Amino acid sequence: MPLLKSWVASANSADHPFPLNNLPYGVFSTEDSDPRCGVAIGDSILDLAAAEKAGLVAISGIPVFDAPHWNDFMDLGAEAWDALRARLTEILTEGSADEAKAAPLLVPMDKATLHMPIAVREYTDFYAGRNHAFNVGTMFRGPENALPPNWLHIPIGYNGRASSVVVSGTDVRRPWGQLKSPDHDLPAFLPCRRFDLELEMGAIVGTASNGPITVQEADDNIFGYVLLNDWSARDIQAWEYQPLGPFQAKSTATSISPWIITKPALEPFRTDTPEREFELLDHLKDCGPMLYDIDLAVTLAPEGKDATTITRTNYKEMYYSAAQQLAHHTTAGTPMNVGDLLGSGTISGATKPERGSLLELSWGGKEPLTLDTGETRTFLEDGDTLTLTGAAKGDGYTIGFGTCTGTVLPALKDPYAR
Amino acid sequence: MPLLKSWVASANSADHPFPLNNLPYGVFSTEDSDPRCGVAIGDSILDLAAAEKAGLVAISGIPVFDAPHWNDFMDLGAEAWDALRARLTEILTEGSADEAKAAPLLVPMDKATLHMPIAVREYTDFYAGRNHAFNVGTMFRGPENALPPNWLHIPIGYNGRASSVVVSGTDVRRPWGQLKSPDHDLPAFLPCRRFDLELEMGAIVGTASNGPITVQEADDNIFGYVLLNDWSARDIQAWEYQPLGPFQAKSTATSISPWIITKPALEPFRTDTPEREFELLDHLKDCGPMLYDIDLAVTLAPEGKDATTITRTNYKEMYYSAAQQLAHHTTAGTPMNVGDLLGSGTISGATKPERGSLLELSWGGKEPLTLDTGETRTFLEDGDTLTLTGAAKGDGYTIGFGTCTGTVLPALKDPYAR
Repeated sequence: MPLLKSWVASANSADHPFPLNNLPYGVFSTEDSDPRCGVAIGDSILDLAAAEKAGLVAISGIPVFDAPHWNDFMDLGAEAWDALRARLTEILTEGSADEAKAAPLLVPMDKATLHMPIAVREYTDFYAGRNHAFNVGTMFRGPENALPPNWLHIPIGYNGRASSVVVSGTDVRRPWGQLKSPDHDLPAFLPCRRFDLELEMGAIVGTASNGPITVQEADDNIFGYVLLNDWSARDIQAWEYQPLGPFQAKSTATSISPWIITKPALEPFRTDTPEREFELLDHLKDCGPMLYDIDLAVTLAPEGKDATTITRTNYKEMYYSAAQQLAHHTTAGTPMNVGDLLGSGTISGATKPERGSLLELSWGGKEPLTLDTGETRTFLEDGDTLTLTGAAKGDGYTIGFGTCTGTVLPALKDPYAR
Repeated sequence: MPLLKSWVASANSADHPFPLNNLPYGVFSTEDSDPRCGVAIGDSILDLAAAEKAGLVAISGIPVFDAPHWNDFMDLGAEAWDALRARLTEILTEGSADEAKAAPLLVPMDKATLHMPIAVREYTDFYAGRNHAFNVGTMFRGPENALPPNWLHIPIGYNGRASSVVVSGTDVRRPWGQLKSPDHDLPAFLPCRRFDLELEMGAIVGTASNGPITVQEADDNIFGYVLLNDWSARDIQAWEYQPLGPFQAKSTATSISPWIITKPALEPFRTDTPEREFELLDHLKDCGPMLYDIDLAVTLAPEGKDATTITRTNYKEMYYSAAQQLAHHTTAGTPMNVGDLLGSGTISGATKPERGSLLELSWGGKEPLTLDTGETRTFLEDGDTLTLTGAAKGDGYTIGFGTCTGTVLPALKDPYAR
């Protein structure tokens, strides 16, 4: 598929993240308007609440776009998803008869504030990147026992905290927590010293289910994808995570990018999961190419300084697809709801510059990373700004994810001062 | 405090679970009415939606009771909570001037269907009963390493799945899952063979917070308590839980009792937490008597047969209070919301007949339990009905929790048949 031409000129570039081929969905506000649904096209956003009101977009008769999230639209089901994409393509395509009506409903991206694209119902985070699991396991248990025995058979995951999910651009305050230094007998309550990122993709559940679903059904139920940074307090995690898993270490914040990249936009980039040592059990087997070829990168900018790219990797490094994770999530019968968010797990490539966390990049803090500014990092410092980017490269066009950024604020002096 | 007399005669008994001293909040429907808020008094329910409409109860001017959950009311804040309790006490007390107006709004309990009392926002489960943690730890790691090193310093918890919380009376289907027998090299996908209960209390967050809160603030933010059965698939858990904790093992269902017992009803039963080996860090220290003296029991009835009491214990066996759990939950900054539900963790007393799970009662399946019917149990069998009960005994009155029941349905023959 080549670049699809739009009458929105800025969208017609091989490098622009939001060409007509993409049509990512977000929530935006302006000085004059409350948060509402919009679709990015080039350097603009088409105001879908206004388009709906003007009768330009009428998917189901129920108004769904004058809302601060996409949940109501997702709830209309997959046929409505297809219908909206078809209609938007029609409206925004070069030579469209709708141009005169639609052009006044475009809002320049730089005049808009972006918000959470969905109301997150529940949030689950996985641990499904093999290189990441191997690296972390090697640090903690040595290379022979790096992967837990279950790892090659099920996508290991845990429930996270939906209330902590924030949109890109939200500052993240370094948390306090209970931790225990190896050289102390007793724990102490202190600001986190090993605050970290995890480069992940988030999959958004757009269709509810109630009971076990197949991998194909799970793939059908996914609405789209976002970039996701699972901020992690490694020292809190080390003390708390046995025996029931990470809890406060993962509850400060999880940042997501503001634009939902839908499955149809990503369809040309489907790719196979890696070769497997053990055949998966039937209920988890691939039902076609299950991953996507999406280039990912993270930059780190110390306060007031230039950014350094600290990692470059690709979503196809995952061992399990989001569909396999979602299918596994339902095996014991739990209902899944519209707006559930699934984190892929940290995405790391095979080599050092492809690692998706500072824990791996600095090998547990032992091998500080040197930034382009000359400074070094083991873990995050106050004022550091992280920026995740993602893009799938087509033939003459780009499916961009935009960015997922966040700046580390210093810990509160006294978290209980009122 | 003695038994408070009501003009609802059935409430005036030392053994009735719902005297005027209690005033538990639930959601009910009848043949003629949709789910709405009500308060139990004796054998009746006062229809609060109707009382609100009739002007008998006007707490804030905003109508909140014609709703299928108590979230809107909780959201009004602690002053409104006090005002409602005061007003209901006034209306329902013996000799009340409101009797003539209120009596027609009573619905016989046996004509009502009870529903979930809250919309569960997020669900967290803890592991804060010392005897339970010691028993389970002993089975898996031996008595010397039974308690993990962190256990006496923080209330260990993990995020659960809110979508799986169901009201008492909901049947629970035995789940399928990936498990690995010790005598097999590879896992298989099978119906759970070690399906279990966990006797817990649930605490309901009634006031939102955003950032770390003290134990006292946490106690203030709790609206009330319910009985909670955390259905657990032990064989699924054994295979999946390392390294990130329980996931599918705990996602089939969590049952709660339909009546929220509020803090003021439980106030006379506050009791101290047990003596501690390690002083807690300041942010987790008790701020007064933090537990409640509530007798708890579980019966098991095989299909079509009489029930056997399989355990009797007390909520005061907990090592950490719900307020301490909630305070810990907020340390890293995660926002807590109205409708968040916190499971206490399994409550087991020191002796065998006080253990709150079949895992402990049958010591990992090695010591089958003999029921009064002569049958034995290691774990739950299809058709088994569990009933949790709870009551605090006052001077001439009872604060009852009602019951939390559930029947095990057989696993689906093929979970993917459509």
